[in-house]
Amino acid sequence: MKRTTISQPESATLFIAASEHDSNLYYATRFMAPDPFIYLEIKGERVMVMSDLEMDRARAQASVDRVLSYSDVEQKAKKQGIKDPTTVDIVHVVLKECKVRCLVVPANFPFIYAMRLQELGYSLKPKRDPFYEQRVVKSAEEIRQIELSQRATEQAVADAHEVLRRAIIRDDTLWFEDKILTSERVKQLINVKLMEQNCVAQHTIVAGGEQACDPHNEGSGPLPAHRSVIFDVFPRSATSRYFADMSRTVIRGTTSPELKRLYEIVKDAQEDAIDKIKDGADGMKIHQGICVRFEKAGYKTGMVNGRMQGYFHGTGHGVGLDIHEAPRISRTGSLLQEGHVVTVEPGLYYPGLGAVRIEDMVLVTKDGCRNLTDFPKVFELG
Amino acid sequence: MKRTTISQPESATLFIAASEHDSNLYYATRFMAPDPFIYLEIKGERVMVMSDLEMDRARAQASVDRVLSYSDVEQKAKKQGIKDPTTVDIVHVVLKECKVRCLVVPANFPFIYAMRLQELGYSLKPKRDPFYEQRVVKSAEEIRQIELSQRATEQAVADAHEVLRRAIIRDDTLWFEDKILTSERVKQLINVKLMEQNCVAQHTIVAGGEQACDPHNEGSGPLPAHRSVIFDVFPRSATSRYFADMSRTVIRGTTSPELKRLYEIVKDAQEDAIDKIKDGADGMKIHQGICVRFEKAGYKTGMVNGRMQGYFHGTGHGVGLDIHEAPRISRTGSLLQEGHVVTVEPGLYYPGLGAVRIEDMVLVTKDGCRNLTDFPKVFELG
Repeated sequence: MKRTTISQPESATLFIAASEHDSNLYYATRFMAPDPFIYLEIKGERVMVMSDLEMDRARAQASVDRVLSYSDVEQKAKKQGIKDPTTVDIVHVVLKECKVRCLVVPANFPFIYAMRLQELGYSLKPKRDPFYEQRVVKSAEEIRQIELSQRATEQAVADAHEVLRRAIIRDDTLWFEDKILTSERVKQLINVKLMEQNCVAQHTIVAGGEQACDPHNEGSGPLPAHRSVIFDVFPRSATSRYFADMSRTVIRGTTSPELKRLYEIVKDAQEDAIDKIKDGADGMKIHQGICVRFEKAGYKTGMVNGRMQGYFHGTGHGVGLDIHEAPRISRTGSLLQEGHVVTVEPGLYYPGLGAVRIEDMVLVTKDGCRNLTDFPKVFELG
Repeated sequence: MKRTTISQPESATLFIAASEHDSNLYYATRFMAPDPFIYLEIKGERVMVMSDLEMDRARAQASVDRVLSYSDVEQKAKKQGIKDPTTVDIVHVVLKECKVRCLVVPANFPFIYAMRLQELGYSLKPKRDPFYEQRVVKSAEEIRQIELSQRATEQAVADAHEVLRRAIIRDDTLWFEDKILTSERVKQLINVKLMEQNCVAQHTIVAGGEQACDPHNEGSGPLPAHRSVIFDVFPRSATSRYFADMSRTVIRGTTSPELKRLYEIVKDAQEDAIDKIKDGADGMKIHQGICVRFEKAGYKTGMVNGRMQGYFHGTGHGVGLDIHEAPRISRTGSLLQEGHVVTVEPGLYYPGLGAVRIEDMVLVTKDGCRNLTDFPKVFELG
């Protein structure tokens, strides 16, 4: 019963969510549904309540102990005198039989259901992520799936970098096959290549020059020569649902010494942070280490002309069924543990000069970490 | 102030969510963020509170009146004596200045925040979808975006059907270019073609024979000849975020009279339902009309050998920023209104015989509807 939360004998775990949008629920049931369903863990038993539409599929695919029919429970509710049973009434009918009055729910449990359950006399205890502690520690199979997504990512980015390599510089802009090379065109190339490998990429970043100075700008328009271009690619496998995440920064054309130095300091900081990762390491300290290092090298962080510059995002996050999950390597930090899969992605952003971010994804081990990324760090594409 | 909810002068609207996963919040702000942020509508003013990481992008892109800096409010909270301000503390600091004590929140507002806000003395009123009534009624621009997603869908499905047309039948299985034609291969072809048009397809259905009898089975393995194959394709535009939705059923090989009849009854029911759609029409009645029609034609619905067969899903749903949104054409139903975009997708599912589903997406008008789907209904691919 690995995935059952520890709870008092008289309490149950309750989800009402669509597993398509709730990775905890998908983790618990391994069942993908686009519409919300009820999932309960009662006295060690894992139970789903499914609509007629999903019954067959749920019985065949879900890793639970029992699949109840929503229509059957609905009939029971009607016999008990409830005229138009709501989702919460259905939960109530199921729980009444087990005499459960206390519910552990995820922190994002919908307020409207919580309110109604409280009215029915239930006591609700929200639990923050990680809801399932076990989800943070990846199994061998989960690591394998994350690596498969990462291999697809590397292929797609390699293809894109090859296009940049072969591009021609005209008027400080990149051209490829007689057309201006835009962020949009390169992102599409990456996303299509990923889809060919059954990986779904959204919000892929290919941002150059000034655009790259905003870490979440996805990039648009012509890609500049002589300026750094950030690639940040984080697709999800359509088959396994596991993500991968990688960033690289490259440049075509002439590289100024200032930009080259910016790249080197980020690369050194990133590799030094990776060296510090191991079971028991403190994510907050690793993040602070990078901040101090940047400051000491003269790369200041703060607001300039109403705009943030320097290093103003976290160093890393867990990757799994969500692209951002526990643990964090940031100012709030977490203790790292064997089996965590985390990104290490420092960056420096200076409007006028440009931006660099370098990101690998690593598996925390007892004595260090294993880098799950197999992709060169080359700044000048030649 | 089109998107502001009507609320008493002393109440405010509050979201704490990631607009990437919350279409109401994206609708309200037109700002895409992967991580949760605070959004408030206070006394007619629309305010976002953003992290340093998102400040610039939010100020440039979000359609709100004011973007506050999370760090700034955090500093203020600390000055007020709050040592480690949480997200809810930040909300509290912003609201205190406006003397608001009553909050309208979406039905899916996270319980953990609701609980803490109630402890601080706020009264919370959850509002069900449609949270923004206006979102159900599509603007000309929204219709244009949905149609663009639909055009991409049609191109992808046309390409896939062409492959089926050119396939060879060998041992009751389809072969294409010397390889067995599998559901996976055809789905990938569709998804790649969609990605080439910047549309993200997930859970595309290409299911044949017995698999198609489970409406949510996505299909796997070799595609059968002489049996019906359901295509259900519903991508989201990566640029506009609007979905489209279309289903077609086709067959390669010999068609039995029973299967041909099944196709015809579903097609007639679908087209008849479309004819009934107009401003003021009752979704529940349209759905019931199809149920009665199927029953009368001898196509029964119910459990047979522990498995549902016949017609056991809704007739249609709204399409927009979500793939399933208001209104519904189903047993719970809604009144249809000019400007709604809805699917019409009856189906019949009989293990042993096979399954047929046909789906168009239409725009409800004053006197009828405009079919946004431009794709032939051809059963036998020849």
